[in-house]
Amino acid sequence: MTERLDAQIAFLNEADRLKSVVRGTTLCDASRRENSAEHSWHLSLYALVLADQAGPEVDIDRVIRMLILHDLVEIDAGDTPIFATYDAADVAAREQKAADRIFGLLPDDIARDLRGIWEEFEAAETPAAQFAKSLDRFQPPMQNLRSGGGSWVDYDVRFQDVEQKVGAKIAIGAPALWDYARGLIVDWFTRNNRG
Amino acid sequence: MTERLDAQIAFLNEADRLKSVVRGTTLCDASRRENSAEHSWHLSLYALVLADQAGPEVDIDRVIRMLILHDLVEIDAGDTPIFATYDAADVAAREQKAADRIFGLLPDDIARDLRGIWEEFEAAETPAAQFAKSLDRFQPPMQNLRSGGGSWVDYDVRFQDVEQKVGAKIAIGAPALWDYARGLIVDWFTRNNRG
Repeated sequence: MTERLDAQIAFLNEADRLKSVVRGTTLCDASRRENSAEHSWHLSLYALVLADQAGPEVDIDRVIRMLILHDLVEIDAGDTPIFATYDAADVAAREQKAADRIFGLLPDDIARDLRGIWEEFEAAETPAAQFAKSLDRFQPPMQNLRSGGGSWVDYDVRFQDVEQKVGAKIAIGAPALWDYARGLIVDWFTRNNRG
Repeated sequence: MTERLDAQIAFLNEADRLKSVVRGTTLCDASRRENSAEHSWHLSLYALVLADQAGPEVDIDRVIRMLILHDLVEIDAGDTPIFATYDAADVAAREQKAADRIFGLLPDDIARDLRGIWEEFEAAETPAAQFAKSLDRFQPPMQNLRSGGGSWVDYDVRFQDVEQKVGAKIAIGAPALWDYARGLIVDWFTRNNRG
């Protein structure tokens, strides 16, 4: 019993390190960059508040579990900002290795369960995973609109980059959210002469 | 439709401010104090990983929803460190006022739903709320054990304070977690001559 709890707590202590993984996006007030732990919390709240944007076949509680777990691999693999240049196959390989180590800290039954939820998110094939992925793409532009541009400015992004790398993904799981965001983002790029 | 989404996003943008509410506890590596948003994420993960510590009548997904929402009122009311001196009735009144304003940003149906979950947590009468409250008390000592004492040192706490203010609450919803933590905490106070 104690051995099992020791393993559960070792995993939870290791997870604490996600609070020190810094993302490309800032807080709404632009005071500092967001970390992946608070980002994961914010996304879970997005799922609760925007549940009416999911199809009837989507289990929101499973979406929330995915969003709580989705960035844990960044403890080893780091965050990959979406507008940066990166090798997707390399990132995926590093994240699989991280998942082996991090979920491997848990007792086997829990490791299998949580790893399965994370793999479902990564595969993005089920309606729940597609909705979770859409929220993960929808939150950063909402922050950028408030913070003065955030990662759009830092990476000198054009609207068509946002449409391709962000919009297309949001539209898969939450088309009405992309319709909504698109209008606001077009307006921001026009007002800021960023084309 | 747009008006409803505007209200949902206004709430989610306001919630971003929880990332700037600083708690008494530090990260495990003691590098800085934890904020209430990342704390809420960590607790949601505690619920997922320690679900086997809840009674069979506890709906873990409801526990997770409570933990995502439980500290939102701190955006207005601030965090109240457990070992600080405070007027519980005053804190409760400020938190109710905060809940009126913050949940009030949402469309009525969502506001009612989320406020209900938060009120259930606050009342601590259902098994789900009692388990959620136990995790909220169990995580800080796990951090303190790693960080070199954290809030125990800052507030010059004795073991009996921990037993009364923390242990008694953990034991209500998760007695085996208090048995486990108690041994580790007694050992820490002994090794550090803090009685």
